Formats: sequence, structure tokens, C-alpha cells
Amino acid sequence: MKNDSVTAPQGFLAAGLASGVKTSGKPDLGLLVCPTGATAAAVFTTNKIVSAGVQVSREHLKSRKAYAVVVNSGNANACTGKLGLANARKMCVLTADHLGVEPQEVLVASTGIIGHQLPMEQVARGIAIAAPLLSDAPKGGLAFSQAIMTTDTRLKKAYRELRIERTPVRIAGTVKGAGMIGPNMATTLLFLTTDAAISKSLLGKALKEAIDSSLNRLTVDGHQSTNDTALLLASGLAGNPTVRSLSRPYQRFRKALTELCTDLVHQMALDAEGATRMFKVVVKGAATRADAVKAARAVADYPLFKCAVHGGDPNWGRIICAVGSSGVSLDPGKVSCKLNDLYVFRNGTPTDFNPKEAARIVSQREHTITIDLGVGRASDFYYGCDLSAEYVHINADYHT
Amino acid sequence: MKNDSVTAPQGFLAAGLASGVKTSGKPDLGLLVCPTGATAAAVFTTNKIVSAGVQVSREHLKSRKAYAVVVNSGNANACTGKLGLANARKMCVLTADHLGVEPQEVLVASTGIIGHQLPMEQVARGIAIAAPLLSDAPKGGLAFSQAIMTTDTRLKKAYRELRIERTPVRIAGTVKGAGMIGPNMATTLLFLTTDAAISKSLLGKALKEAIDSSLNRLTVDGHQSTNDTALLLASGLAGNPTVRSLSRPYQRFRKALTELCTDLVHQMALDAEGATRMFKVVVKGAATRADAVKAARAVADYPLFKCAVHGGDPNWGRIICAVGSSGVSLDPGKVSCKLNDLYVFRNGTPTDFNPKEAARIVSQREHTITIDLGVGRASDFYYGCDLSAEYVHINADYHT
Repeated sequence: MKNDSVTAPQGFLAAGLASGVKTSGKPDLGLLVCPTGATAAAVFTTNKIVSAGVQVSREHLKSRKAYAVVVNSGNANACTGKLGLANARKMCVLTADHLGVEPQEVLVASTGIIGHQLPMEQVARGIAIAAPLLSDAPKGGLAFSQAIMTTDTRLKKAYRELRIERTPVRIAGTVKGAGMIGPNMATTLLFLTTDAAISKSLLGKALKEAIDSSLNRLTVDGHQSTNDTALLLASGLAGNPTVRSLSRPYQRFRKALTELCTDLVHQMALDAEGATRMFKVVVKGAATRADAVKAARAVADYPLFKCAVHGGDPNWGRIICAVGSSGVSLDPGKVSCKLNDLYVFRNGTPTDFNPKEAARIVSQREHTITIDLGVGRASDFYYGCDLSAEYVHINADYHT
Repeated sequence: MKNDSVTAPQGFLAAGLASGVKTSGKPDLGLLVCPTGATAAAVFTTNKIVSAGVQVSREHLKSRKAYAVVVNSGNANACTGKLGLANARKMCVLTADHLGVEPQEVLVASTGIIGHQLPMEQVARGIAIAAPLLSDAPKGGLAFSQAIMTTDTRLKKAYRELRIERTPVRIAGTVKGAGMIGPNMATTLLFLTTDAAISKSLLGKALKEAIDSSLNRLTVDGHQSTNDTALLLASGLAGNPTVRSLSRPYQRFRKALTELCTDLVHQMALDAEGATRMFKVVVKGAATRADAVKAARAVADYPLFKCAVHGGDPNWGRIICAVGSSGVSLDPGKVSCKLNDLYVFRNGTPTDFNPKEAARIVSQREHTITIDLGVGRASDFYYGCDLSAEYVHINADYHT
């Protein structure tokens, strides 16, 4: 089996196991390690209340190199006060001790329920057992991917290869996230590895750009969590001339990274809590790009429209209602709406479309809604998914 | 039976019946008439795409007096282009003809599905049959209330009496609205009658103030429809000295009107599509009142929290997550949260609360969440309701 996990790029080891943080006995602790030290970049939640892990990782990113990431699922270690912060630091210390590096060279992330203290005995034992299991084989990467899942029903990973000045370079990523997904950023936890040699500033720029047009364009329920973290580690072992300018090699790397992230977004949308379908909302004819984003997001976030998609119902009136309610500039007499290529509303008037054809489009696994606001030339898009009774069941019963 | 319907204030007649707009055969056409002519005030949706009824009523409000309101349910007459606009005008003409008034003295409102043309034959016949049924008895007011319902499961009405300079004055109201409810304004359709004598400008001011602290503080699914309309008709027949200044009589009237609207808001929240519970989110310690509203609304709109309430689950972490995600100023080390009087989070740290007590509170028909942001002295509130699988069922199957 060809390795397409986070250990596929050269220079990465990973492990994952069930430490007992989750009472279900499912995997809940992962280690991702770059023994030679990686250049690291990150994007974090903009929520003003952030988890202890986010606070600690923000500090540790100032180190020149990152040697490891330690992650737990089943407990967010958020809203846990000073003890929570001490526990996140302790996770870095324990991991650093096993690897022989400094605690500031370890990044940490958590996901799960908010407001409960981490069971540190289990976490410490988990780290101790995971360290000797670290492997660059697919099983290491897959175990890590499993360990970060919460309500995800499917393991999510993506892999890309490209050439930078004729040298093969690899990028891999894994993500968890099924609910509490709204920009910025629609991630929950995303871990990316690459063996490209690239400067720290360009690595950060590429990550930000890739996320802006992929994970930050997906909404499941419109809110971002206290824990959202995207980490990109670059081992530099591919041997390419180090990318240090906004040259063609940089653009190729950024493009491949964006494609990989977009691949992960599709996996997330289709595995969103209770989701059975996804859609892309394209808004054009907008006065500004900000308006286009706002209108597209209003549709993707609108519960009534999400329910209609779940029912396979081409209820385009709810699309127009959401756009009008979003506050963007539009010309009511020029607004148009298409489901894939089928016009249902044109210049402010319903068309004589075939309802069966419209229902068939909306019932597909993926479809595209295009709205023209009729006032300008700007456009942008958003991804969304349907809202099902299953979403409610999952989220009404999560805690107790 | 004491009349507490919209015909309770002196000078109002009403009727309602099934005209055939709804294929279900349920009531769908209502007339509300003030034969002596009423002073009228209105608040409309701020959606940029508005129904034909809203466009026509906006025009007709410029008339000195309003003699009637004609309403249909089952069809929103929105996104229906020029034909839709002609049909809304036609509803006013037909009503005016039966009453012997001018079309501009008739207001019109519609609610129901967006994007379908009104079946005008049924509407015309309905108006013709309703006109001779107009009555000032309770049955007239109740038939009108029934005729405006869509997915509402309960008829909603409220009634208040007050004295203005020793003269008894009556206010009555009826509202429909169960989904597509978000500010501004959380109404869909609201019709208020009063026999108070009050100037047109103060009537408008009182209505706006009452709605701002009642219907504009309720969110069911965060969006306002294309059709939201609140109309307040004052016959002036109570015989009180006409209210013409911001005096104590005005304040008493505004207060009674606000209480009546708040009563209707509770009825709406508890009858929201699929809702079984409602809650009030109070935010205090905010830097500005706008921040308090924003944070309170973020909690009330958050699907994950709404699901938790549905499950009777005191998942306060989702409250804090929503507040942090809303972008308002806060001090993470000072944020606190109470469920009714029970602190679950205090100064950034979870309390040692009794989970059974917390679950009992959240499982009540109504409860209050109080959040202190720890940065200022401003406060405000929002109403919300739980999100159930039933909401999805209702809205996935509405169209087809």
C-alpha cells in the first residue's frame, strides 16, 4: 500500500491509540513527530475564548523548530482555567521528555467537550505508550488520523505530489471536524505535513491562503470552536532548493496545498454531523467580493434552506430570502438564481422550470447554486451541507 | 365569553375563511376592517427582497386613514415579479370595492410559500364571501387569527386594557410565525388594534419601540422573511384625550403595547417549528449595548446550543463558545455564566455545580441564561427556542 497518510512526506513519524480520555475506549491520543525538526506554520480560531492548547501552541510556535505535535480528542481542554493551562503545558513537557527535545518545541491541540478537566493520568500514560509506537509507515499516520476523530464517521486524509524545480515534493493532511464548523476557520483540527524546503514566512503565507479559499469557505453550523487549529509542518527533506520568494515554485506549492485542503473540505462537508448532501453557493454580480462572500454564506448557513436540501426540495424561494436578508447590495429586478445550469429565477421573476428536473439536481450528492445579484462584477463562493434530524439527535445527546 | 381578539377594541370588524389558496382547505383569507377609518403605523421586514404586499402596503400607508387590511396565507406573493405586484394591488381594489373605500386605504399582507403566483380567482371569491361575514364579535377576530396561520400549531393572540387619563383603552394583537423568524423583525405577520386616540407619529414610535424590545429579540432560525409586516391600527374611539406628546399617557400606552407584544413573543417561541422549550439569554458586563445584543443573539441562534436545550442537556461550553465566536469584547478570565441562578462558569473557570440541578433547569419549559462578559456595564437580551428533529421534518417536506 502506498503511503498517503501524514507520514508520507519524508521525515515524519506518527502514532495513535486509546488512552482512556474517551470513556468509549476509542482512539483519543496522537503524536506526530519530525525528528529532524520542522519549520512550522499555524492558523488558529479567532474565537475570543480559546482552549489551553491554542494558548500554549501560539507561544511554542515562536520556537525556531517544532519537533512534535501531541493531540487528544474527547476533551477540548477549553474553559478550564489555570489548571487546564497547566495540563496543556504538561502534555508538551511529557512529550518533549520522551523525545529528548524542549517543551517549547512541542505543539499541542485538543478537541472534544468544553469545560471538563483533562484526565491527566490517562493522557500521561497514553503519551508514554505512544512514543515507542512512532512509525513512518502508513499505520502510524492512520492511527494518528483515527486518534483525532470525535463525531466524525470517516477518517479524513488527502495527499498530493508536486515537483519543485524538478525535485519531487509531497504534502499530506488529515482533518477532524463534523460540527461546530464555521469560518474562520472551518477546521476544528487540521494537521499538514510536507517535505518541501520552504522559508517559515512563506510556509505561513501559503497555509493562510490555502485555508482562506478552502476551510474558511465551509460552514456546517456557522460557529467556530474554541479549539480550531491548523498546523503545517515542513521537514525540508525533499531536497528542493529552499523556496524563499513569491516565485513560480511558491505558487505551485500554494496551489497544491489549496487543492489538498479543498479535497479535505469535501470530505468534511459530506461527513458533517447528520449530513447527506453538500452544495456550493456561488454568488456573482456582487458590488464587492465581501458582499459575495456574505450572501453566499447567508444561503449556506440558512437552516430553512439546509432542510430543503435535505428533503431534495428545490425551494429556491428560501435562497432568495436568505440573500435578501443578508444585507448585501442587490437589484431586486435583476436577481437571478440557477440550480446547476437550470434557471429557476431570472431578473426578479420565477422561470417556468421543470420541478422534477430541479428536484433531481437538489437530490444529488453535490450541486451548485449560482446567484447573480445584478449590481456588479465581484464573485465568491461558500460550501454548505444539508441539515438533518440526525444532526439534532447527535447534538441533543452529546453531553450526557 | 369576553372578547380578547383583534375585534375587542372599539371600532373593528374581522372575518376569516378558507378561500382555496391553501389546497389543504384550511383558512387562508382574512379581513380586518375599521369602518370609521384608523390611524395606521407599520414596521416591515428589512429584507432587500420584499413581497408584493409589503411594497403595496408601504405605499398605502401614506394615506391619512386605513380602513381595512386584507391578508392571505398559503402563498407569500414574493419573488413573483410584475404579475405579483398587480395581484397585490388587485387584492386592495377588490377589498376597497366591497367596503366602498379607496384602494389606497387598504393594506395588504401575504404569507406562505415564496415564488408562486397567487390563485386570484380563489382570492377574489374569498374576499367577496368574507366581506358580508365581517363581525365585531369574538368569532370575527378568531376567524381572522386562524386565517393568517401557516405552520403555526396554535392561534396566537393577546389583549391588554389600560387607562389613559381615566378613560379605558384596549389593545389587542394577533400574530403568525413559527419559522423564518429572525430580527429585524421576528414577526412574519402581526396585526394590532387599539381604540386609543393617538397621533400617527406617536403611534409609529410606540410600535417601533414595542417591537424593538419584543419581536426583534426573538430568533428561531436567524433570518427574516420577505414578508414580515407589523400593522397597528388605532380607531381612536375610546374617547381618551388624543395622545400627542411623549407624556405619561404615551409611556403607559407604549408599555402596555410592549407587554402585549412580549406576550405574543412567548407564544411564538413556544410554537416555533418543532420547538418544545424556549429560553432567554441575558448578556451583561458588556462594553456596549450592541455587544450585549450581538452576544445574546449568537447564543440564541447557535444550532449546537439549541440542540443541547432540546436534549435537556446543560452543555454550557457551547454557550461560552458562541459568545467567544461572536466577536464581542470580553475578558476570558472574568467571563461567567449562570443557568437561572446556578453558576456553571465563574471568572473563566467551571464551577463545581450539580449536573442534575443544571439538567433540571435546562429541561424546563422556559429558563434564563445569564452571561457576564466582564468588561463593562451594558446589558441586553434575546429570546430563543430549542432545535428539534421535528423542525427538520417540517422544513424538509414543506414544498413538495
